[in-house]
Amino acid sequence: MFLPETDQASADHRLTVRRLGIIGLGLIGASLAAGLRQRGADLTIVGYDCCADTRTEALSCGYIDAVAESPLILCEQVDLLVLATPVLSLPALLAELKPALMNGTTLLTDVGSVKKIVAQAALDLFGEQPPWLVPGHPIAGSEFSGIKAANPALYVNHQVILTPHERTDAFALAQVSALWESVGAKVQLMSVARHDEVLAATSHLPHLLAFALVDSLAQESESYEIFHYAAGGFRDFTRIAASDPTMWHDIFLTNDVATLKVLDHYLAELTEVRNSLAAGNGEQLFSMFTRAKKARDYFSTVLAERNL
Amino acid sequence: MFLPETDQASADHRLTVRRLGIIGLGLIGASLAAGLRQRGADLTIVGYDCCADTRTEALSCGYIDAVAESPLILCEQVDLLVLATPVLSLPALLAELKPALMNGTTLLTDVGSVKKIVAQAALDLFGEQPPWLVPGHPIAGSEFSGIKAANPALYVNHQVILTPHERTDAFALAQVSALWESVGAKVQLMSVARHDEVLAATSHLPHLLAFALVDSLAQESESYEIFHYAAGGFRDFTRIAASDPTMWHDIFLTNDVATLKVLDHYLAELTEVRNSLAAGNGEQLFSMFTRAKKARDYFSTVLAERNL
Repeated sequence: MFLPETDQASADHRLTVRRLGIIGLGLIGASLAAGLRQRGADLTIVGYDCCADTRTEALSCGYIDAVAESPLILCEQVDLLVLATPVLSLPALLAELKPALMNGTTLLTDVGSVKKIVAQAALDLFGEQPPWLVPGHPIAGSEFSGIKAANPALYVNHQVILTPHERTDAFALAQVSALWESVGAKVQLMSVARHDEVLAATSHLPHLLAFALVDSLAQESESYEIFHYAAGGFRDFTRIAASDPTMWHDIFLTNDVATLKVLDHYLAELTEVRNSLAAGNGEQLFSMFTRAKKARDYFSTVLAERNL
Repeated sequence: MFLPETDQASADHRLTVRRLGIIGLGLIGASLAAGLRQRGADLTIVGYDCCADTRTEALSCGYIDAVAESPLILCEQVDLLVLATPVLSLPALLAELKPALMNGTTLLTDVGSVKKIVAQAALDLFGEQPPWLVPGHPIAGSEFSGIKAANPALYVNHQVILTPHERTDAFALAQVSALWESVGAKVQLMSVARHDEVLAATSHLPHLLAFALVDSLAQESESYEIFHYAAGGFRDFTRIAASDPTMWHDIFLTNDVATLKVLDHYLAELTEVRNSLAAGNGEQLFSMFTRAKKARDYFSTVLAERNL
């Protein structure tokens, strides 16, 4: 909570753990395993997923070396464990793993899109932020989900935000950083609160707006007829509305406060725009479009610098 | 105004005009010329643009054969004229061209994103909908604008909506249809009012939402710092916010009624979503996300069928 934001984690990291566990073999977990495999990481990867078909596919694709019988048994076998399950499942999963985590020999990270719930669950379970826990969030994804969408290059040039606290063990932080760097990602450090605010603005709010737009139009349109006249701009604008409803349900329920804050700012701005439009105030509209274009053009330069 | 919507213009069209004029050589006008050139259309293309550099570039790129000294002189030289200037400029441009159009030997179309303003200007100037006028709108574009963004394949597999009326000459409609089909587009017929409603929903509203989001975030963020943590979903969602402010200013001022209607529906839905979020009503959020995903997945199948 108390670390300053940094441009990137400063130390030179080398992955020294040899047994990695991944619980949750959907898009995010399976892409991590696939990326490690493709880059020849010297790791034994043990996986677990609540879906038997997914476990079988992870093995047959060669993403993992072995399947554990349960999350707890998996946790007992590995040096570093990645939790890649939906955000709302994390508190119960942490509780289930507590007996194995208590001895402090397994380093733990997660990939949840909201970090507050992980930090809070750890505090509730262990009475303090455990030094072996490094909450994390890879800023990468897709409107597709599940192991069939796994992509070994998913994290290349993408950012992974880690939210360590003042009690976080330096070795734990270095190993989790090295794990992500070894699949091509860039690691950034941030406080839990800042992470949840930044993601509310740049990811959670846009998803909410896209879901609401597609739903709003679908309700107006007989048999979706309107979609036959939409083109590239609409395709790109609404792509994220095809994202997994369960995952986003969890994200909004856990990052409600930060999302409401940016949503309320947005509603106020959109109402102002509506009133400019109703009043035929072209100058106000033009000023807003010009400011937005300048900011979006700046964002394009940021993406170009990151080769995205 | 009275024609039924059709899946596509029914007749088999062949472009028989030989002298084509294009006024406005930005992305849309120059891409049309470039597409005709690339496909070897047997046409002399005369162009005009208010910007001298653009006229020079259109000639030097070979998009056009000649530059006219003025819009009126151009109109006198061609069999079919395409107006590809910003929407709000169309009434004055039509008035300027009136002396040449009065003899009825030049067929006229335009590419404006709003069709009401064109139909109204024609009615005001000519006292009726002229038979030689076929208002049109290619549903294609880009966040880039200007002749340097011209793309000969811009219209391939894209739809062009034409809004003829009951007095429209069949030959005029067939020639304008053939023009667009000759650059790979598919022609759809629709009433002016329906066009403006459909575009308000699928294009104008999404642009307004994207402009407002980027502006809202830029105002909250010191030096745009927040954009450094955004990724692919945000990139796609906000791409259209880099669009040309002048063009969009014109579109919103001319399609204000239809845009306000869908914007008000959207604001009502978004406010409902906000209240679900504030109340922690996960069921309502999940239902909405699921409905939206179903509709967006349907849209993906529509795009796939159109090879887009």
